[in-house]
Order: sequence, then C-alpha cells, then structure tokens
Amino acid sequence: MNSSTEIRDKRMMQRALAIAREGMTPFGCVIANGDKVVLETPNTVRVSGDPSAHAEMNAIRQLSALGKKTDGLVLYTTGEPCPMCMSAIMYAGIGEVVFAVPWQDIRRFYPQIEISAREVINKGFKEISLRGEVLKEECLALFKNLKP
Amino acid sequence: MNSSTEIRDKRMMQRALAIAREGMTPFGCVIANGDKVVLETPNTVRVSGDPSAHAEMNAIRQLSALGKKTDGLVLYTTGEPCPMCMSAIMYAGIGEVVFAVPWQDIRRFYPQIEISAREVINKGFKEISLRGEVLKEECLALFKNLKP
Repeated sequence: MNSSTEIRDKRMMQRALAIAREGMTPFGCVIANGDKVVLETPNTVRVSGDPSAHAEMNAIRQLSALGKKTDGLVLYTTGEPCPMCMSAIMYAGIGEVVFAVPWQDIRRFYPQIEISAREVINKGFKEISLRGEVLKEECLALFKNLKP
Repeated sequence: MNSSTEIRDKRMMQRALAIAREGMTPFGCVIANGDKVVLETPNTVRVSGDPSAHAEMNAIRQLSALGKKTDGLVLYTTGEPCPMCMSAIMYAGIGEVVFAVPWQDIRRFYPQIEISAREVINKGFKEISLRGEVLKEECLALFKNLKP
C-alpha cells in the first residue's frame, strides 16, 4: 500500500468516525470515489426500528437510490462489515472495502454472527479488496464510550 | 414435524410461490403468524435497482415499518436465504424459517455466496428453526422458467 492510499484511508475513516459519532452509535460509513466523498451514512437501527439499517446497508441503499455506478468506489466503515452488509456490498458491485474495528473486537460490545468479511468474499463470486484496522484504536474508543 | 405443520408449510409456500410469479422472479416471501399471513413480498432488485432488495430483506423492512413484533412469526421463502437475508432475519428476531430451493440449486441460475442459512444460524447468537425443501420441485420449476 502506498502512502497516498494510507493518507486517504485515514482521512476517509475520520469522516466515517464523525458520522458514527453524530448518529450516536459506533457505526459510520463513507463511500468515496478517489478523494471525493459520494455519500455518508450512520447506523440507524435504533432510530428507524429497521434491524437491517446498518451503516453499510444504508450506504448501499442510498447509492442505488441515487442511481450511482459502483466502478472505482471504495466503502469505508468503522466496524468490519457483518455477513449481511458484506453480502450486500458484493451484490452492489463495490470492489474495495476499508474497515477500522475487526468483528472480534465488536463482539465485546454487540452480539455478532461469527463470519468475517474475508470469509464472505472468499465464498462469494467476485473479488473484493479488503483492508482492516485503519484508525482501529480511535474507532474502538467510540465503541467503548457508547457501549450498550 | 406433525401433519398440521406440514400442511401449513405447503400452503404458505404456495403463497410465496404466487408472490414470486407475480413479481416475475423466482423469489417470493411470506411472513405468517400461525395460519394468518402478516405480509408478502417479492424480490424487487430489478425494478427498484436496489441490490439488497431480496424478497426476505423486503419482508424484514416491511415488518419493521409496520412496527410488528416478531414473536411467533414464521418466514417462508422460495429460495434458501442468502447470508445477507439470513443475517437480517436473525437481527429481526424471527425464530422460524422455511424455504423451498437450497442454495446449491439456486447457484445453477444465479451467482451465490456459498454460505448456507444453517451456517449463518450456527455462527450466530440466536437459535432459529430451519426447514428446507418444502415444495422444492414446484419452486425449482419457476427458477427454470425464469432463468436469467
């Protein structure tokens, strides 16, 4: 990974973290095209009552509502995508995912389905580039502050 | 399984199959409480452009929009729930799922993430009762008729 990717990853994850904070949950998502933010979504499970309204699912739905193409898009998320979200990301055709906190750490705060994002990709029908632990400590701190 | 459960399973799956046919895809879903149908949803991925709009996901969202409790509900679906849908079903708190066509057969017609509904349940945080191959041949015939 070159340093420009590293700088961009951190910058985008800072935005995902800010969106998470605003939504009063540890989960925030940004979809970007290069340096340009396409959309930002928080987790809205509690406020909407929709148990599927994870930050990444909200992003996928918003992206399709906007009629956006997925070529070249990168999805940044504070928590490793669960199998629901990772599957939706694959169906949407997004080719690159960056997350902060691995599911093994999320499990300390929220019940998890113990299937990693990597496993969904490996058993799927499309290669997706995946990078983890970007700003992990900063994002993990939010999980600790907002623990249920 | 007693015969009244078997009769109900078949009756509800017939409805799921009818919903699938109406939606012009092989995928239809019914949520029921005993003999009472709570809601019915087709797959709307093509018509909505939302790649996450599988029949079961549509059912979960509609259920939450209606503010329905999930106690005692059974979800019937023509295709074995994919990891996206099975995870959403677990998050929603639905305790019983009945499907017709296993993912190994669906794969002949649509690309699949090779994680079974059973595996999601086994790696999850809540027991869910799962029955498969109810009206399998009838539902499979629709997959064959509508193959992409």
